[in-house]
Amino acid sequence: MSDPCPAHFIDFALSMAEVATEITLPYFRTPVAIDDKPDLSPVTIADRSAEAKMREMIRAAYPDHGIVGEEEGPEGNDRRFVWVLDPIDGTRRFISGHPSFGTLVALLEDGVPVLGVINMPALQERWVGARGHPTRHTSGGQTATVQTRPCPQAAQATLYATSPLMFRGAAAKAFARVQDAVKTPLFGTDCYGYGLLASGFSDLVVEADLGHYDYMALVPIVEGAGGIVTDWQGKPLTLGSGDQVMAAGDARCGQEILALLAGS
Amino acid sequence: MSDPCPAHFIDFALSMAEVATEITLPYFRTPVAIDDKPDLSPVTIADRSAEAKMREMIRAAYPDHGIVGEEEGPEGNDRRFVWVLDPIDGTRRFISGHPSFGTLVALLEDGVPVLGVINMPALQERWVGARGHPTRHTSGGQTATVQTRPCPQAAQATLYATSPLMFRGAAAKAFARVQDAVKTPLFGTDCYGYGLLASGFSDLVVEADLGHYDYMALVPIVEGAGGIVTDWQGKPLTLGSGDQVMAAGDARCGQEILALLAGS
Repeated sequence: MSDPCPAHFIDFALSMAEVATEITLPYFRTPVAIDDKPDLSPVTIADRSAEAKMREMIRAAYPDHGIVGEEEGPEGNDRRFVWVLDPIDGTRRFISGHPSFGTLVALLEDGVPVLGVINMPALQERWVGARGHPTRHTSGGQTATVQTRPCPQAAQATLYATSPLMFRGAAAKAFARVQDAVKTPLFGTDCYGYGLLASGFSDLVVEADLGHYDYMALVPIVEGAGGIVTDWQGKPLTLGSGDQVMAAGDARCGQEILALLAGS
Repeated sequence: MSDPCPAHFIDFALSMAEVATEITLPYFRTPVAIDDKPDLSPVTIADRSAEAKMREMIRAAYPDHGIVGEEEGPEGNDRRFVWVLDPIDGTRRFISGHPSFGTLVALLEDGVPVLGVINMPALQERWVGARGHPTRHTSGGQTATVQTRPCPQAAQATLYATSPLMFRGAAAKAFARVQDAVKTPLFGTDCYGYGLLASGFSDLVVEADLGHYDYMALVPIVEGAGGIVTDWQGKPLTLGSGDQVMAAGDARCGQEILALLAGS
């Protein structure tokens, strides 16, 4: 598919995100016992139920497509089309009553992310990116195409990362070089940080310790807004990629960050 | 005033928070040139205009009260009643399009915070705490009294802090002890973290590098929900306090954190 992503795939991804919202949002800000075991907690129930329902929808609509999710094992992940699902990205924020959590849906063709949705149920915001389409952002019921902003140099950049604790060993040292080089390092965003970047509100996201379901949806969204997303070696993200992601609204700034991550 | 905080003070604090929202919210997510100087940026204009208007309102309604704000110098801060104002707490998030910023309004009597408002304009949430009243939280147009949740031990606690970069030197070492002791350390909240704690969604906030305008409003909100707020030595927060704050929903957990901060 070097053609634009067909509308029926986009509509289907949005319908899955809506179903995930219907299942997960009622569990937000409900009382959680302090000693709830992780596998019995409301968030885990919400996460698993939503992923199970999304998998059902894919099997019914596209029985020849593969599926990769956070909760269940991969099925058919060597097929031409593979859906990548994360019903609740930002689980720890969800649990602690913070509205900055999202549902992520991606579609890969031959390993390349060609469609991505970030849906923020509690914030009522959504980003949709698809090959051949400009990235769209919906907020307060208004939808508009968005673009990253120019930021030629790291020294001018606002950087988001979910937590400094996601970096260990050599990755911590590499991130420290980036953190020291940018103008404003901020924390605590999960998938939302990539949406803010696509909308031109911030310039960089540098993260590690991620799963495929954490980042595949972000790729078409950032690319469709004019930015770049790669691993820390500057390579495209596929199902063979590791746990590190670098996103830049301006490729010039992105190249500077990749050099810093590489140690130069 | 050991009597309950009079309703006219509460109403007045809310009216100031609303005026600040009207002035600042139109500047949220407006384009900011990458080379805007800090003193000419839209956020600075919004911050200053809102504080100037709030000061006008105080001078008109309570000419014998003092005022402490972020943007202008203190006036009459030795008076019996002193208002403490921060039109935009979380300025760097505001600038980068993140809705987690708030307006803070506090009233001190003889140096003791007796009334506090956290208003989150973009999230449409609000917390109000006042001596002699239970803390109230408004979200989605619904208002309810809130309470902190039990959390007897740090090992069970969810901790929020705005950024690891707010701790330097000995404070960084002290915070590292706390971070290692809790169950879930999360970042990126500014004033919102104290609201989530008051509502019983999280257990701790430990921060440094704060101004009086950053924390006075939080004290009556957390205390009125059943929690404690002190400096890192366990002392009450007054206009003589430094830049460090510790808030706990459960005093037992708070005592454990104060011991860790003290180095034991």
